[in-house]
Amino acid sequence: MCKQYLHRLDCTKCLHSVRIRYNSCSELERISLSAVDALKILCLSKVLDFHHPHQLKDGLEGFSLDLPEHAETLEQILVDCRDTLKYGVSTGHPRFFNQLSSGLDVIGVAGEWLTSTANTNMFTYEVSPVFILMEEVLLKKMQSIVGWSEDEGDGIFCPGGTISNLYSILVARYRVCPEVKTKGMGALPPLALFTSEHSHYSVKKSAAVLGLGSESVMVVTCDERGKMIPAELESSILAAKSKGLLPFYVNATAGTTVYGAFDPLAAIADICHTHRLWMHVDAAWGGGLLMSDRHRRKLQGIERACSVTWNPHKMMCVPLQCSVILVKKPGLLQECNKLGAEYLFQTDKPYDVNYDTGDKSIQCGRHVDVFKLWLMWKAKGSDGFGSQVNKCLENAEYLYDQLKRNSDFQLVFKHKPEHSNVCFWYIPPSLRALQPGPDRDRRLHEVAPQIKGRMMEKGSVLIGYQPFGDKVNFFRCVFSNPATQPEDIDFLLNEIITLGADL
Amino acid sequence: MCKQYLHRLDCTKCLHSVRIRYNSCSELERISLSAVDALKILCLSKVLDFHHPHQLKDGLEGFSLDLPEHAETLEQILVDCRDTLKYGVSTGHPRFFNQLSSGLDVIGVAGEWLTSTANTNMFTYEVSPVFILMEEVLLKKMQSIVGWSEDEGDGIFCPGGTISNLYSILVARYRVCPEVKTKGMGALPPLALFTSEHSHYSVKKSAAVLGLGSESVMVVTCDERGKMIPAELESSILAAKSKGLLPFYVNATAGTTVYGAFDPLAAIADICHTHRLWMHVDAAWGGGLLMSDRHRRKLQGIERACSVTWNPHKMMCVPLQCSVILVKKPGLLQECNKLGAEYLFQTDKPYDVNYDTGDKSIQCGRHVDVFKLWLMWKAKGSDGFGSQVNKCLENAEYLYDQLKRNSDFQLVFKHKPEHSNVCFWYIPPSLRALQPGPDRDRRLHEVAPQIKGRMMEKGSVLIGYQPFGDKVNFFRCVFSNPATQPEDIDFLLNEIITLGADL
Repeated sequence: MCKQYLHRLDCTKCLHSVRIRYNSCSELERISLSAVDALKILCLSKVLDFHHPHQLKDGLEGFSLDLPEHAETLEQILVDCRDTLKYGVSTGHPRFFNQLSSGLDVIGVAGEWLTSTANTNMFTYEVSPVFILMEEVLLKKMQSIVGWSEDEGDGIFCPGGTISNLYSILVARYRVCPEVKTKGMGALPPLALFTSEHSHYSVKKSAAVLGLGSESVMVVTCDERGKMIPAELESSILAAKSKGLLPFYVNATAGTTVYGAFDPLAAIADICHTHRLWMHVDAAWGGGLLMSDRHRRKLQGIERACSVTWNPHKMMCVPLQCSVILVKKPGLLQECNKLGAEYLFQTDKPYDVNYDTGDKSIQCGRHVDVFKLWLMWKAKGSDGFGSQVNKCLENAEYLYDQLKRNSDFQLVFKHKPEHSNVCFWYIPPSLRALQPGPDRDRRLHEVAPQIKGRMMEKGSVLIGYQPFGDKVNFFRCVFSNPATQPEDIDFLLNEIITLGADL
Repeated sequence: MCKQYLHRLDCTKCLHSVRIRYNSCSELERISLSAVDALKILCLSKVLDFHHPHQLKDGLEGFSLDLPEHAETLEQILVDCRDTLKYGVSTGHPRFFNQLSSGLDVIGVAGEWLTSTANTNMFTYEVSPVFILMEEVLLKKMQSIVGWSEDEGDGIFCPGGTISNLYSILVARYRVCPEVKTKGMGALPPLALFTSEHSHYSVKKSAAVLGLGSESVMVVTCDERGKMIPAELESSILAAKSKGLLPFYVNATAGTTVYGAFDPLAAIADICHTHRLWMHVDAAWGGGLLMSDRHRRKLQGIERACSVTWNPHKMMCVPLQCSVILVKKPGLLQECNKLGAEYLFQTDKPYDVNYDTGDKSIQCGRHVDVFKLWLMWKAKGSDGFGSQVNKCLENAEYLYDQLKRNSDFQLVFKHKPEHSNVCFWYIPPSLRALQPGPDRDRRLHEVAPQIKGRMMEKGSVLIGYQPFGDKVNFFRCVFSNPATQPEDIDFLLNEIITLGADL
């Protein structure tokens, strides 16, 4: 296996689907020899070398987490670095299927390295002239890809999809009632917002943080594929109105966390239009598909959204963290968040201070998350991102086809995946003869955690599982690392069969 | 000048006050040759090579910000990287005095490079076993340095001081009324919180975001040194009560942004105790002084706080971003923020899921900000951070002494600086004969922006200015880069005199 991964590193054909961009290994080395070394460390090893918290805390093999009073030697620092990588999880490994963010893009990592060397902040043009302009260019590009016109669109890069979603509710609330900024929630009647039962929990969390309360979130029923049912949304809106609540915001999801489902955006946009509601699209996971000519039709209707969350650190394989909130109406973000702290954002500076973004943001200091994305875009082009996304979705179809053919597995729903999520149960030999029902469910529920536990101990591959609604624990495989090949998928299924044979 | 900076790089004595840690240049190079190269690029050049937004957008010297449809060559990518650094601001330059965050710690940068290579997320032990434990170790250490006992203390690293301050209000509000999480602000009477007129604007911004409204923030008067006056706080609390508001939270600042003032924490703690209010200490800037035996007494009383914000990316010179919110009562952060999304945070995993921190956080995905701090702590020891802080405060005293001696300058207040902030006016020749009054003020107000503009054009040094209260524009010099030497301070003053001689 070591040889295989080494081959992948030597041969850029396998390393990334961006292979057409980096023509030879020597070019790769010119980016940074150390980056290649780091990749070697990651890929030659297991996906993880699991230890329980107490084992790591006890100072396993001399790896001490304790903070010293006096300096350690430089030799020890290097050992600490090696140990940190050794006991960590290789999210860049082609057999890491555990999270929506995976992979390790060499140019992206180089971008992050330059960012940390530049060590600056996004609040003013004064300290980040280049990065501020890159943010503007990226926002404009992403807005045009969403389908907004030249004179529409604003946005900001922020620390993760949850914060992006929080921004959308914050701005929508301000739009309903600007006085909320100064007077608080007392200036408003009780509000209601809507999201599907398959949507991300950040909508509820944001409602709690923003002082609306999690109960102001109305949960709309989905169909069996995890898509919001428009008629259910409509009746939920009417029900809220009849209770004296003020509906103001709908979150539609483009790519749900578990099923990878796309809500019917156009139908939801119609309903939002009728009821004059803010339509947000949480495309944190699905936004990447906009880069692919083959798959962008799945987000049809997104151009009608008032705001969009899109995380390039997921489907576009940008190193963590890189998330954006796009807002259609220019100026709203600034109006909603500005406090005009003259002691920080002076207006008598020797340049156009409209480029200072500090007052548009909730944060004061803001990490530079744009450069790695900008650099990757230069290195791949829009079409390179497209091929990368296509590759991941081809992997999902391959897995789907294998599962359909193999009676050891059962798909959670029979449809072909729309995104790269594939959900399935492994049915161990002892359960195969059982009739569907509570007893089988109870036993099946324990299968995935047990296999996962063994998988972590062995460290050969990593995949997630969860229960959902009335469905007992099932595996969810996701593909966002273009380095994954069909043989890795075969390996995954064989490994599950091997690890679960005696269950 | 080039020679001088090159010398600083070759000789670790000058490069960092952590010189005692890195014994020779060859050791430095063994950390990473590329890091040294990057430093050379930064330090051999000017502090900045200023261009207006329209100049950079027009594609200066072939540097195009546009995002291509097809991939660029690798040669072009490297040119893009070089241009990005060239037109950026060298915050690691010893003559960059513009922000509270500056400097470039080689070990910190190496830590950030490893972090981006590991490319993982802080939500679960499963994907971040080592970093999750490092966070625990760092939190415990920082809590003990604040002065909390073994059984007290909780916290989380989050994206910047504003978000840390927001957490403190969020948790304090939950403490007053846990129903706010589900029912929203309607579950509560109108609230009041208190902060000084010199405090950071994030308290008001957070109140707006959280749905309390910015008007719920009562601004307490300070003395001439920028310290909150306890008697004013007391009367402000009583006034709020008499208006039917419910006081619940006081923010005390340890190290204000402009003056570097420390609020009298012990006196404020007494008042909070009397009125049963949550006491938060915003030590984003001042927290670093806790590492110094010589200066930690300035934060006396911080051990009585219910929560503390502390940004190691400021006074401890950790690369951006690294901020922590500490909460004294264990479990509160988790109770306040948990939503129990079983599809993400499974409870039947093969390890102790108490180590999964995702439900303690507002964010879902959370960037790994701990490793660089952990690694720097290993490389310096607590005492190394202490010497670094001492060095920065010695620089401030040196500047203060020079200013006192030189009649071209006027201090904003006569006291010796408590932190590393030094605030002063430059009085150009044409104003020296004028009597204090509106006319002199009007003209003096324009001096700092004009000099700053010339400074940016020249790129030799960078320092901030702002008006504050009834004070017209003045310079604020801050020291957080231990590489700065007295000769850099002499250079700054001479440069101001040169650039302002004709004003």
